[in-house]
Amino acid sequence: MLIQVEYYPTCLSSIATSPQLFSLNMINKTFQAVSPIDNQLLDGNFVNADAQQIDEVVQQAVNAFQVYRKKSPEEKAKFLAQAATEIENLGEALIERCHLETALPHGRLTGERGRTVNQLRLFARVVREGSWVDARIDTPIPERTPFPKVDIRHVLQPFGPVAVFGASNFPLAFSTAGGDTASALAAGCPVIVKGHPAHPGTAEMVAGAILKAAKETGMPEGTFSLLQGNSYEVGEYLVKHPGLKAVGFTGSFKGGQAIWAHANARPEPIPVFAEMGSTNPVFILPDAMEERAQRIAEGMAGSINLGVGQFCTNPGLTFISKGKSSDTFLKALSENISQTAATTMLTSGIKQAYDEGRIRLAGLHEVKSLAEGKSEQAPNQAVSQVFHTDINTFLKEEELEEEVFGPSSILITYQQKADILQAANRLRGHLTATVHATEKDLEEFGELFNILEQKVGRVILNGYPTGVEVCDSMVHGGPYPATTAPSSTSVGTNAIKRFARPVCYQGYPDALLPAALKHSNPLDIWRMVDGELTKGKG
Amino acid sequence: MLIQVEYYPTCLSSIATSPQLFSLNMINKTFQAVSPIDNQLLDGNFVNADAQQIDEVVQQAVNAFQVYRKKSPEEKAKFLAQAATEIENLGEALIERCHLETALPHGRLTGERGRTVNQLRLFARVVREGSWVDARIDTPIPERTPFPKVDIRHVLQPFGPVAVFGASNFPLAFSTAGGDTASALAAGCPVIVKGHPAHPGTAEMVAGAILKAAKETGMPEGTFSLLQGNSYEVGEYLVKHPGLKAVGFTGSFKGGQAIWAHANARPEPIPVFAEMGSTNPVFILPDAMEERAQRIAEGMAGSINLGVGQFCTNPGLTFISKGKSSDTFLKALSENISQTAATTMLTSGIKQAYDEGRIRLAGLHEVKSLAEGKSEQAPNQAVSQVFHTDINTFLKEEELEEEVFGPSSILITYQQKADILQAANRLRGHLTATVHATEKDLEEFGELFNILEQKVGRVILNGYPTGVEVCDSMVHGGPYPATTAPSSTSVGTNAIKRFARPVCYQGYPDALLPAALKHSNPLDIWRMVDGELTKGKG
Repeated sequence: MLIQVEYYPTCLSSIATSPQLFSLNMINKTFQAVSPIDNQLLDGNFVNADAQQIDEVVQQAVNAFQVYRKKSPEEKAKFLAQAATEIENLGEALIERCHLETALPHGRLTGERGRTVNQLRLFARVVREGSWVDARIDTPIPERTPFPKVDIRHVLQPFGPVAVFGASNFPLAFSTAGGDTASALAAGCPVIVKGHPAHPGTAEMVAGAILKAAKETGMPEGTFSLLQGNSYEVGEYLVKHPGLKAVGFTGSFKGGQAIWAHANARPEPIPVFAEMGSTNPVFILPDAMEERAQRIAEGMAGSINLGVGQFCTNPGLTFISKGKSSDTFLKALSENISQTAATTMLTSGIKQAYDEGRIRLAGLHEVKSLAEGKSEQAPNQAVSQVFHTDINTFLKEEELEEEVFGPSSILITYQQKADILQAANRLRGHLTATVHATEKDLEEFGELFNILEQKVGRVILNGYPTGVEVCDSMVHGGPYPATTAPSSTSVGTNAIKRFARPVCYQGYPDALLPAALKHSNPLDIWRMVDGELTKGKG
Repeated sequence: MLIQVEYYPTCLSSIATSPQLFSLNMINKTFQAVSPIDNQLLDGNFVNADAQQIDEVVQQAVNAFQVYRKKSPEEKAKFLAQAATEIENLGEALIERCHLETALPHGRLTGERGRTVNQLRLFARVVREGSWVDARIDTPIPERTPFPKVDIRHVLQPFGPVAVFGASNFPLAFSTAGGDTASALAAGCPVIVKGHPAHPGTAEMVAGAILKAAKETGMPEGTFSLLQGNSYEVGEYLVKHPGLKAVGFTGSFKGGQAIWAHANARPEPIPVFAEMGSTNPVFILPDAMEERAQRIAEGMAGSINLGVGQFCTNPGLTFISKGKSSDTFLKALSENISQTAATTMLTSGIKQAYDEGRIRLAGLHEVKSLAEGKSEQAPNQAVSQVFHTDINTFLKEEELEEEVFGPSSILITYQQKADILQAANRLRGHLTATVHATEKDLEEFGELFNILEQKVGRVILNGYPTGVEVCDSMVHGGPYPATTAPSSTSVGTNAIKRFARPVCYQGYPDALLPAALKHSNPLDIWRMVDGELTKGKG
């Protein structure tokens, strides 16, 4: 179900529902998107979902679950793949609308669309292959003493309806048809997306594509829904709804925390997989600095500025070894940042928070602005900026580890190995940590790697944290406060498992077992049979 | 580290620490075990851990983690297997002390010891085999456009120090060396056990065996510790300690909730795997009732009375089909229960709560006592009891779903299929659900099985919920309120994964990678290489 659009010409699939009196604490019945490019209202009035509409949508998802969970892997895979096709079929109209809503350039959005549809197709392949369900079979031993061993079989089953909160910074790949939606649908869970209010038109178009695919592939109504709303209350009401069984979220620490608190306070608490961003420390080790200061500075500038710094993996903390070449590094990075044109951010709110963050950093004792980018020429443009301080200040000032969302980084000069190890040890949980090192550095700084793998979900050698590959081995997650669920990833095929739980069947006849657990292995999947992985019978 | 025992003759491995002034809110520095058999104090003064002792123990675990996490699978497996041997080496002295502390019969405790050591050995085998770490490798594609694909590798890494709360009802298999301890140690996490105050001598002996095994196999000090305490504050202080990274708990709903709340309120919240029990509904379908009412009644009586009903999987709710044979069932079960001798419970507190629960059930409108067992002959003995009501009362009275820990069950008569489906749909999360059915019942009641697999961790056909096999496919878990972590099991080899989180390595040279991820596959484990499961190189 798509909560109605009163006026939105490019949306093909809106369902008309009669407007209802609002029982949530909302002022406006509808809202419009605002383009960050010129602060002008964009076409289309989007309905703030009210309690009755949310109730209806959740009830549809609850009903759909009973049908969708029984669809075969092949049927679910076809749905996911068709959703990819239908998103592509939206053509340039999607890219154009998304550009107006987010100010992200066409090239970036085209790439992001590619990532979105490839992700859906990859997940379709994983669902079709089928082994992700972790089928385990212990065959009976009736003659065992003192008690016979009975037949026990284990498989992952979907949770039920999942709420997904669209992210502002990836309007395609982490929003309506993004990683959380793709993984929950792949797991067999209906999805209710709470669209991000910064790109409601984009959300509506993508939702239309998914709904079209659902219809074309015979999925029940309610398998996917979009709720719109520009108030906090829509999300809160949704998370508290008893029909919901799990939540996927990508966004701010504050937003993730609030949703998690609501979920934990429910009569039936439910899992929340919230990716709340981080500052992604980068460590430039002494020999690497001597060897290639200029090259790393260029790479860092690119990573800091990528997507106007609006990435969860933006490198906000850069530890630099002080030595002969560190001045080269600082000079090269400063020059690069100084020449960076101010670029439009996603929303005026994000721009304001970014400037507040810059002012906060500049106001800290012993923290200096090293370089600022070119001035703003238009509304909502972010001026890139790098700050500079030393390791002792970092060790004293916990605030430096807080995310400033935008194109900035704090450069922290260190001289002693002990200092950098102490700083690494003090880090909170982050999504990533990056090290630039030579062979010689690797020999000397082994302990740094040992510490970092205990702090983050992904460690990167001689690369940059921005850019997250969608693959089987990706971990986009990490210990708190990077996420609320340190055992999970929100990117890559392992993200599917977040939305399933194990169920075991004891003493079932073959006919009553789920296909994944039947003796003949009709799905031809890998299973653990009496402790051995096999595609054989069991 | 073992928090000191001032006097306990059979304990070999106490470490003397100087008594400290208490900074926790405790009245007594030491406590003694009370035998439920005669309410007499048992030998041995056990020290209520104080803040300084807890701090020391956690710091040792934090230090030990840095060594223990790097131990090879073979080394960790040897430790686990040696712990099993050392527990066996405690001989009958362990069984005798445990009997005095718990009133559980020698035969049961001998069996439970077998389960405990078999579990350690099974986990040792899983650790030695090594594939549980979910190694995943995506090999690089340097020529890919627009961006080269880098080398990315994924493996599970241990969380860090884990607190384990011993359970009263399985003094061996779910306590000091129980499922949570075995799985956390197998995952590579140091363990701090908070011993259950009802069996401190048992805890101390088993802890001594584990510490001996740790020393014999070269594990660092702090890999395993036992803290004793008969006050709530010891556990609270431990869970709030910043050095802790996860918690395993088996016990009451109230206890699990409190620990979960403390863990969520930490500056760095940590995962809590709390198994909080349930009422484990049993459904006897019409044709099965007609076919074998007498036999099922005998089986149910055995399951209700097993271990004086002190099992998380005790069948507290029994839905019985009303028909020609239901009177036979009620009569047979009543007779069996009436002849059941009163048996000593684990503690006077548990006995008191059981009697309060019985009084509460007997006082409910439309709920009648059907049969009571023989009267008490000694302190702390539980009188078995079954209650009887009808489906409409169950549907009105949510309280009937609350656990009464002890040898009782509520029999709920139903006539209509629709009623039983409604009752199943209304169930909260439980550990298990059991159905007694014939072929004919299976044909008619397919929807019941569909509902139940959405409500519980384990569904059982034509068996009894008591008795939990320790194997690869076991799920001892379930949706809230059965547990705080519906995606996990606390029994079986999959329990190990609870205490590990995924970490991915991007662009690492082979030498820097963990053994599980090296190109040559030196551990000879199953890995997912470019989407394919293989034991080959990657």
